[in-house]
Amino acid sequence: MHVITQKDVENVIQKRIETGHKGTFGRVSVIGGNANMGGAAIMAVQAAVKAGAGLTTCISHKANLTALHARVPEAMFIDYFDNDALCKSVFQSNVVVVGPGLGTDETAKQVFSSVLKNANQTLIIDGSAITMLAEDDQLKKLTPSAKIIFTPHEIEWQRLSGLSQAEQTPAKNAAKALELNADVVLKKHGTEIYHLSGKCSKLTIGGPYMSTGGMGDTLTGICAAFLAQFKGDQDQILDAAVYTHSDIADLLAKERYVVLPSEIADNLQKYMKHRCNGQIL
Amino acid sequence: MHVITQKDVENVIQKRIETGHKGTFGRVSVIGGNANMGGAAIMAVQAAVKAGAGLTTCISHKANLTALHARVPEAMFIDYFDNDALCKSVFQSNVVVVGPGLGTDETAKQVFSSVLKNANQTLIIDGSAITMLAEDDQLKKLTPSAKIIFTPHEIEWQRLSGLSQAEQTPAKNAAKALELNADVVLKKHGTEIYHLSGKCSKLTIGGPYMSTGGMGDTLTGICAAFLAQFKGDQDQILDAAVYTHSDIADLLAKERYVVLPSEIADNLQKYMKHRCNGQIL
Amino acid sequence: MHVITQKDVENVIQKRIETGHKGTFGRVSVIGGNANMGGAAIMAVQAAVKAGAGLTTCISHKANLTALHARVPEAMFIDYFDNDALCKSVFQSNVVVVGPGLGTDETAKQVFSSVLKNANQTLIIDGSAITMLAEDDQLKKLTPSAKIIFTPHEIEWQRLSGLSQAEQTPAKNAAKALELNADVVLKKHGTEIYHLSGKCSKLTIGGPYMSTGGMGDTLTGICAAFLAQFKGDQDQILDAAVYTHSDIADLLAKERYVVLPSEIADNLQKYMKHRCNGQIL
Amino acid sequence: MHVITQKDVENVIQKRIETGHKGTFGRVSVIGGNANMGGAAIMAVQAAVKAGAGLTTCISHKANLTALHARVPEAMFIDYFDNDALCKSVFQSNVVVVGPGLGTDETAKQVFSSVLKNANQTLIIDGSAITMLAEDDQLKKLTPSAKIIFTPHEIEWQRLSGLSQAEQTPAKNAAKALELNADVVLKKHGTEIYHLSGKCSKLTIGGPYMSTGGMGDTLTGICAAFLAQFKGDQDQILDAAVYTHSDIADLLAKERYVVLPSEIADNLQKYMKHRCNGQIL
Repeated sequence: MHVITQKDVENVIQKRIETGHKGTFGRVSVIGGNANMGGAAIMAVQAAVKAGAGLTTCISHKANLTALHARVPEAMFIDYFDNDALCKSVFQSNVVVVGPGLGTDETAKQVFSSVLKNANQTLIIDGSAITMLAEDDQLKKLTPSAKIIFTPHEIEWQRLSGLSQAEQTPAKNAAKALELNADVVLKKHGTEIYHLSGKCSKLTIGGPYMSTGGMGDTLTGICAAFLAQFKGDQDQILDAAVYTHSDIADLLAKERYVVLPSEIADNLQKYMKHRCNGQIL
Repeated sequence: MHVITQKDVENVIQKRIETGHKGTFGRVSVIGGNANMGGAAIMAVQAAVKAGAGLTTCISHKANLTALHARVPEAMFIDYFDNDALCKSVFQSNVVVVGPGLGTDETAKQVFSSVLKNANQTLIIDGSAITMLAEDDQLKKLTPSAKIIFTPHEIEWQRLSGLSQAEQTPAKNAAKALELNADVVLKKHGTEIYHLSGKCSKLTIGGPYMSTGGMGDTLTGICAAFLAQFKGDQDQILDAAVYTHSDIADLLAKERYVVLPSEIADNLQKYMKHRCNGQIL
Repeated sequence: MHVITQKDVENVIQKRIETGHKGTFGRVSVIGGNANMGGAAIMAVQAAVKAGAGLTTCISHKANLTALHARVPEAMFIDYFDNDALCKSVFQSNVVVVGPGLGTDETAKQVFSSVLKNANQTLIIDGSAITMLAEDDQLKKLTPSAKIIFTPHEIEWQRLSGLSQAEQTPAKNAAKALELNADVVLKKHGTEIYHLSGKCSKLTIGGPYMSTGGMGDTLTGICAAFLAQFKGDQDQILDAAVYTHSDIADLLAKERYVVLPSEIADNLQKYMKHRCNGQIL
Repeated sequence: MHVITQKDVENVIQKRIETGHKGTFGRVSVIGGNANMGGAAIMAVQAAVKAGAGLTTCISHKANLTALHARVPEAMFIDYFDNDALCKSVFQSNVVVVGPGLGTDETAKQVFSSVLKNANQTLIIDGSAITMLAEDDQLKKLTPSAKIIFTPHEIEWQRLSGLSQAEQTPAKNAAKALELNADVVLKKHGTEIYHLSGKCSKLTIGGPYMSTGGMGDTLTGICAAFLAQFKGDQDQILDAAVYTHSDIADLLAKERYVVLPSEIADNLQKYMKHRCNGQIL
């Protein structure tokens, strides 16, 4: 199993081409945030914007419009009940994230269903969207044309894979990822990434100061921005995004008992600048 | 009477276990914030999140949703008129705070009543909830199964205990706490904590730069997060939370004429890191 | 004419009494902010809170609730159409500010009328409230029992006093303040304060980096907090508030081409701490 | 072609006259921000306020009121459906910006039409307003009395000028600007400014860390504030605004992989102070 290192990040974060414009660095859509859990979608969007996505759209319950713009005026907004706009934005996005704070009710299912039908490049499926997919046969039948990345924690992985936590061995996880035709970022103490290519990567950094609500939402935003803007080895890009998330947390934890997800987002720009130059922050 | 010291804090704030996840560090629900005093609930939630609670939910008037997410996207939200969701969240929480900005009208009473019926672990009763309980016989009859902590200032304690301020001697306060079957944090110049165990603790730090609206709301959030995440001597954990609140205020007051409650919250992570290592900030 | 100096500020900002609680440091109500100009009321409230008022309430159009709590969770809110709550809050306040962003329409007049009838301690009349009073005979008949302070700029002073800008000499201004039975803070290059006591004070600090929308709103908040919390010579307290506002601006202008009103508010706590100790910031 | 330098900025940013008040430094109205793209208008307003406009009004969908005031309480707000208030504000403004986040639907067209009819000093036409003007014959017939500045990127310029990107040579661009009777800021790698005077200016600073949503919105706010407050050579003032935007970005990019538009706004005051004194930041 490949242990992800700072070198992976330095390989991925390259100097931007001089003539690049917004479109060059990718379009990201984040679909999530019902009337109770809007913060999750906002944190994912904030991370995507600060990690360098060219254009980022938040597709959410309209109750979340104002908090989004108060925090991230750089992002655009679509009411997730506006299905036409949702489908168009998902269709045009280089990377789509679905799940942060989406919930599992009927609305969530319809929204998720539209996403599955329209995503056609890269689709990151997180949180409650994983749970819905694990439990709903209608949703399972929708096989998107997009490359799929799941980002479950161990309980969500159990629901999706059918593997109990005891059964979640590297071999079984890798086989299941293959069966699901997806990359799987299995979030836990020592996060593992099962790539569809067969490559398995492991994180040996991070810590329990990251165990707070919203941490996974921020991770999805970083993954989305990295995949949207960087060219090259897709496995390494995903590995680098996961490493970046925890490496910033480790740096912040030197001065903090707990690290908040939005603080990780706030430090992305400086971290990426330093890693781009091959320096230590 | 035990004088709380930095040593109490250092005993309580231990290094987190490496394999801990969000659930390990506790669920907190804060119930408060009517259409006029939403800031109070938001400040309590902010303090709970930054003091390290694993998952924090704000249960409030829906007018407060957006300001909450603009300040603390890490928290979840429940409209306090959604009684089913309220009861479920309260029931599942390790620590519940009720009162900050809740008011004393009919809605407040119904909300408080639901909380009293469903809280089953630790319940911190603050502000207007204390006043309601002191004045409403229906509410008094609801004896929750949860361990109760009251956080009154002297006037609220007078209402609840029937003791005039002149009568509020340590002996009488301790007896009344026993009679109420609760811990009592009596907030004043030289805050005293009457534990149900019989232990009485006293704060000799803090100052009048803390005399501003919202200071008590922030205290409840810190108490909740400490009780939700730390193991061991419950009396010492509560003492440590109260000390932390004032110790941060003292540190900030070196550079400020008044200290704002939200500034105390903003400094929790660094303070706790330093106290965890046994260092002075 | 008395030139206000740092010494005035140092005389006014005294160490807080150790046993002081929220009530000790005064209640402030700010009435302003229609559906278009809510920021004005929010800036006044923010300044009052950070200048040390014990309890601050914003009475405004309900459209401004969320932005208020997103910026200043420490403040309470009352919808200005809730006349009962408005009257009660105004009646109970040590200092009331009316005018910032209130406008001059029928709603504004009704709100202002309620304020004039209920304020009974100190009432600061600012901005559009000055214009309304100058132009409306009904409002003029309402003679509040509160001590009145007007904070007009030169055009507003012309409307209120009937003195053209050319006629606004110290002697005529002082006579007019006496006739109006009020203190007048005449805001301009070299602000002058005409006290009802006969004392006239002059500001020789400040500068054109302060010429931006909202600067006067912030001034009202500082005046309110100073008058609400400090004891002693009322003229000197008002002078000190006016000086504090411009002195912070001067300090910030060393590093800024323009100074924003909310930045002045953000620096009040540190400024007041230093002036309290007789130090230079 | 004139290469814009720091010297242009230093010539433009002069010390403010001592007796200047809010009105001296100009009124700016920003019209933009539909229910999906409010952040764009907010970022333009934020930049105008921080770049020193005396009074700034945001005219937008009412969904954007709260996020505006949460970020920029200094600005006033008008619902863009309130046509009377819109027309009055536009008429009274020294500089009007139309376009950021406005969209191209029927509402956008009506709003834009009102702006074209009422702007009478300087009108900056940006983003979707350029697209509407390029495509709608009704709008083309409205010839405003204001001096016009277009701020297209290359695709928008293609729509407006009819020149394909390959055809966009300096000579053809200059001729087209003359034909359009407007200054044109053609935003691209090496932004060019075609002044109606015949002067052509070029930017040789800036970089791909600026390629993120909202960057152009922030530029319009800076241009508006510069034109509203500074006297003298109008071409040089516009050049200086464009240079300022990219120069701040370059400074921030030393520590950031991407630079966010709102960060540029946050650094305007300090940058302008230093350039005013002829110093390097």
